[in-house]
Amino acid sequence: MIIIMEERASQEAISLVLEAIEAEGLKPFVNPGVERKVIAVLGVVDVEKVSVADKFAALTGVERVALVSEPYKLASRAHHPAGTIVNVRGVPLGGPELCVIAGPCSVESREQTLEIAHAVKAAGAHMFRGGAFKPRTSPYSFQGLGRKGLEILAEAREVTGLPIVTEVMDADDCDQANEFADVLQIGARNMQNFRLLKKVGGMKLPVLLKRGFGCKVEDLLMATEYIMAEGNMQVILCERGIITFEDSTRYTTDINAIPVIKHHSHLPIVLDPSHAAGDWRYVADIALAGIAAGADGLEIEVHNQPSKAKSDGAQALTPDKFVDFMTRARRVAAAVERSIRVPVVTG
Amino acid sequence: MIIIMEERASQEAISLVLEAIEAEGLKPFVNPGVERKVIAVLGVVDVEKVSVADKFAALTGVERVALVSEPYKLASRAHHPAGTIVNVRGVPLGGPELCVIAGPCSVESREQTLEIAHAVKAAGAHMFRGGAFKPRTSPYSFQGLGRKGLEILAEAREVTGLPIVTEVMDADDCDQANEFADVLQIGARNMQNFRLLKKVGGMKLPVLLKRGFGCKVEDLLMATEYIMAEGNMQVILCERGIITFEDSTRYTTDINAIPVIKHHSHLPIVLDPSHAAGDWRYVADIALAGIAAGADGLEIEVHNQPSKAKSDGAQALTPDKFVDFMTRARRVAAAVERSIRVPVVTG
Amino acid sequence: MIIIMEERASQEAISLVLEAIEAEGLKPFVNPGVERKVIAVLGVVDVEKVSVADKFAALTGVERVALVSEPYKLASRAHHPAGTIVNVRGVPLGGPELCVIAGPCSVESREQTLEIAHAVKAAGAHMFRGGAFKPRTSPYSFQGLGRKGLEILAEAREVTGLPIVTEVMDADDCDQANEFADVLQIGARNMQNFRLLKKVGGMKLPVLLKRGFGCKVEDLLMATEYIMAEGNMQVILCERGIITFEDSTRYTTDINAIPVIKHHSHLPIVLDPSHAAGDWRYVADIALAGIAAGADGLEIEVHNQPSKAKSDGAQALTPDKFVDFMTRARRVAAAVERSIRVPVVTG
Amino acid sequence: MIIIMEERASQEAISLVLEAIEAEGLKPFVNPGVERKVIAVLGVVDVEKVSVADKFAALTGVERVALVSEPYKLASRAHHPAGTIVNVRGVPLGGPELCVIAGPCSVESREQTLEIAHAVKAAGAHMFRGGAFKPRTSPYSFQGLGRKGLEILAEAREVTGLPIVTEVMDADDCDQANEFADVLQIGARNMQNFRLLKKVGGMKLPVLLKRGFGCKVEDLLMATEYIMAEGNMQVILCERGIITFEDSTRYTTDINAIPVIKHHSHLPIVLDPSHAAGDWRYVADIALAGIAAGADGLEIEVHNQPSKAKSDGAQALTPDKFVDFMTRARRVAAAVERSIRVPVVTG
Repeated sequence: MIIIMEERASQEAISLVLEAIEAEGLKPFVNPGVERKVIAVLGVVDVEKVSVADKFAALTGVERVALVSEPYKLASRAHHPAGTIVNVRGVPLGGPELCVIAGPCSVESREQTLEIAHAVKAAGAHMFRGGAFKPRTSPYSFQGLGRKGLEILAEAREVTGLPIVTEVMDADDCDQANEFADVLQIGARNMQNFRLLKKVGGMKLPVLLKRGFGCKVEDLLMATEYIMAEGNMQVILCERGIITFEDSTRYTTDINAIPVIKHHSHLPIVLDPSHAAGDWRYVADIALAGIAAGADGLEIEVHNQPSKAKSDGAQALTPDKFVDFMTRARRVAAAVERSIRVPVVTG
Repeated sequence: MIIIMEERASQEAISLVLEAIEAEGLKPFVNPGVERKVIAVLGVVDVEKVSVADKFAALTGVERVALVSEPYKLASRAHHPAGTIVNVRGVPLGGPELCVIAGPCSVESREQTLEIAHAVKAAGAHMFRGGAFKPRTSPYSFQGLGRKGLEILAEAREVTGLPIVTEVMDADDCDQANEFADVLQIGARNMQNFRLLKKVGGMKLPVLLKRGFGCKVEDLLMATEYIMAEGNMQVILCERGIITFEDSTRYTTDINAIPVIKHHSHLPIVLDPSHAAGDWRYVADIALAGIAAGADGLEIEVHNQPSKAKSDGAQALTPDKFVDFMTRARRVAAAVERSIRVPVVTG
Repeated sequence: MIIIMEERASQEAISLVLEAIEAEGLKPFVNPGVERKVIAVLGVVDVEKVSVADKFAALTGVERVALVSEPYKLASRAHHPAGTIVNVRGVPLGGPELCVIAGPCSVESREQTLEIAHAVKAAGAHMFRGGAFKPRTSPYSFQGLGRKGLEILAEAREVTGLPIVTEVMDADDCDQANEFADVLQIGARNMQNFRLLKKVGGMKLPVLLKRGFGCKVEDLLMATEYIMAEGNMQVILCERGIITFEDSTRYTTDINAIPVIKHHSHLPIVLDPSHAAGDWRYVADIALAGIAAGADGLEIEVHNQPSKAKSDGAQALTPDKFVDFMTRARRVAAAVERSIRVPVVTG
Repeated sequence: MIIIMEERASQEAISLVLEAIEAEGLKPFVNPGVERKVIAVLGVVDVEKVSVADKFAALTGVERVALVSEPYKLASRAHHPAGTIVNVRGVPLGGPELCVIAGPCSVESREQTLEIAHAVKAAGAHMFRGGAFKPRTSPYSFQGLGRKGLEILAEAREVTGLPIVTEVMDADDCDQANEFADVLQIGARNMQNFRLLKKVGGMKLPVLLKRGFGCKVEDLLMATEYIMAEGNMQVILCERGIITFEDSTRYTTDINAIPVIKHHSHLPIVLDPSHAAGDWRYVADIALAGIAAGADGLEIEVHNQPSKAKSDGAQALTPDKFVDFMTRARRVAAAVERSIRVPVVTG
């Protein structure tokens, strides 16, 4: 931690900063001769102590306080150089093989769900996604089938063999989803719902954590820390677009985040091009970009009848388009020395 | 609702859009002669139906779908022209008198809390804020005193008479806070925690809903709709800064949002300059700007010893600075024909 | 300057960094004992040398390079603690009296211009604005009257006595405007047109520099440095809104920027609420917020017939609304211990 | 064009809007029965007339005005369905073969420039970039060699055969570059320097127009219109990152913009991953993403000694890393059915 003083900071202000550092059991070190007074904070300033930065920043004469180390630990590649591979019922996520998660935004009915599950399986998807509990911006929109939806997802798994990824919104959802699903998804709007993070941190199932659309990569890794600090190390990160001034797409895919996350963290990262674009016309191209940038997987919305979907129809690929996409995806994966396994279709 | 077709949309594509509109029980109207085909959707396209926009957008040849009406109803001034005044134990929020909510970020101890409560009361604050349940970005940071914190807040109310505003993070917090607090605050990170919104919507206490830092004004009003649709009409909105590229302050205060919200909604709006700036040096000036722009109140962090605060010390005013601020605030309020009542100090 | 190494940086990488620092004639100092290797760069790392940061950042094993001092000098309050007052033909900008600059977006005709000039003078404006050279996003939109427009502005000055503020887009405009105007305005889109900055830096007239809508406060102060380094110290800064995800207004007024600029720079800062909002309905409230936040002046668009304006009609106040605004503005200015001089109306 | 009235707009206000439309020689059409009054503007509302939108928006009772058509014409795919191929001295940009433009940020010396030119040629680049006129954020930073730099670039072309891309900042630069270069580049900070756009619009050389970091895709296409309206149809667009709240990279690559621009425009689009990332560690992955997303080319900074570069060293690839990148790029190009021609190395 480095404390940068205001240019006009008095000697007294500097002395008070030195005292404050010592009062925290840390050791100050005033850098010689630099333009402004710069005070390094020595000693064990680990992640448990980063909040002292805020105390120091409150002192008179302090211009700002800069962290030197990352404010997270368990998610950091510095402490875990090898990449983590999350294993979901035998499907690896994070290794040389890319993992494609596909399915509808919402579970709307048994027929719709099974039809799409068969279709994405046939096209080569490795996991099936579908929402039983839906976080909708309008209270008047379809809110999901709840437990009934989970039962339909379980049936989809039974008939296709694909592991199930489904979103949870509170502790009770988690307990229900625990009976039926294979990966618990936390949506962008709940990325900093710390109670929910702690809850899934205490569970056994892998967690797919979506980046909040107003959150930095560092915030995402801090949120991950909540899950891992509770003991659940099976976390899959997901970039799904951030909010920017550009309005030709619903969000802006932060493609940079993929190599950035690979640099800072050992956890696998998948890209959700569907929410990132909000428009099916752009989904395939963005997904291919994600593969080329180094993503470990994709989460893509597929619907058999987008114009009748109860949610997010505008961004869903039809099964035909998804088949076409998978062909292209396999080629791009091979070009970056990854692969997309062609599942043995038995269904 | 207006559907704008791609310039090269085929006649067949247009026909399918017309059919889709009729299939939803609505009536299409093709505008004559405009540059591209523009189809108006007539009939009762109220807030319960806005999600059909997404279905129409999924159709081939559709460039985009534009809403004509606001996608919210209960929060809209169109349906409730007079401004709402929320009454909190006799303290009005939303009328000609401005309401100042002040106190520490976190309840840290009985002594700290009571000292600050007395100080802000003496300076003229109308409500007391303090967090017992703290949403922190790091799991290693102070997480609040929980129920013990609520008990301290209740004591602060008893000795000062100031109503208590405190944050809740899940349903259980709500039930506990219900015993002790006067206003339930929902933090920026939970603005779209729809389960929590529904929970407080079913309660009797007024709700102070903070805008998510990545959320548009429209998203805030949609989130409000979740609370109001459950029957709780006592909602206070709060602007607390949005995330932008500017990094000289922690967030960017969206001062425009104050008159914009006044234009679109009848609900009272307060400004939190402390989180918006993240730096005590700028808090007072931003707060005065909020009053001048038409805010109905302020929520300001005050701490007796910012450099020892367990959270957010860098943005807290000391009691002395708060007294000075209140003097300035009264003058600005008077200048915009509002007032800040000077409480009779009895404590 | 501080160089923060990657956690896994090798000893060899560190040695190369030390050598690179010395090769620039600077002195490295390795901080003891902190979590990662942190190397302070001692010696005269002044603004002429900040670009070495980029060289150091290119070295293997360097995580990032942080500046300790501000990368600008002439605009910095550190080197010029007292606030600068720019004097425009006897009208002070930067002192206790606020300065209101008002007028139409474009000079459209002699009649329109003179009518508005008389109206804003009568309402109490201190300078008159109007564009002869118009930077329009569409090449098909009205591009200004050019020299003819300047002549009309000069006539407006003659009949009202108000100094003239007008925008310049290239060196030739500057030479023409020099004959007729009192303040040269550089628009947001040209804030980093460095050739233009150098040109006005070599001139005698004061410059009003608008912040680019995608530029940080620091970028604005760096752009200012281009002007001042050429010898022109009469620079007025202008906040006019930044581009963010919020779309209920055209830009987001960065109200925080006002106290932030006051903290970092000695130059006067005015607020342009018209471009910041893009909607006349919000202009007055935002302008009042600017006064309360500490702005030294305002630049406001006024048009006698907004619905016939050749540019930006949607954000213009009518003369009646401007009169009403000025009354409110005087009250708010007084509340923050500033004043708005009531000019002796002689016209 | 569609005019949406406020919910409470009076009948009189509506009448005034209808009159205003007719006064512009256009024909209003009031949509039947929709929630609010929605007025379509019929007749020839082409790009020359879009500024009437602003007039209508100024009228009382108007909530907002929405364009139905794109506000640009010459750049629009609607009017030119086939993709444009720009031919630069025999090197095609926009067809099935991708074009790689590589070279240093600045021309620093003859030796440095020729060494890099030979290196990028050998690695398979198709054009050579280098700046003689440098737009630097600090006036104290290296500003380029000017005409001397252009002469060096011309020599680089002579010895390698690679066409030259170089940036121009004003009209005089254009005239000088015209003697030596093959493509005139307009930098992000000058994207809305309309005088410069008109100047290059009147020239014969192809123009590479970089997107402003605070500008929407639509703004980019409007800026293009300035060039094309002057008669120069040889425009290459360039995505180089936008400014967002994410600060782990210098800008955020808007990868979505690539398919979005392909949808709306017939012009070729290249990606500059170097400025988009600001960090060499991420450049290759982002560049590959650009190819996968459908970019027609890349512009990449390569420097023989990044830690001694006079500008932007932190984002430059070394020649070795560039060779490695080109190998990967060829594979990804092939995977998306494009190709990168291997030039016959004769130098």
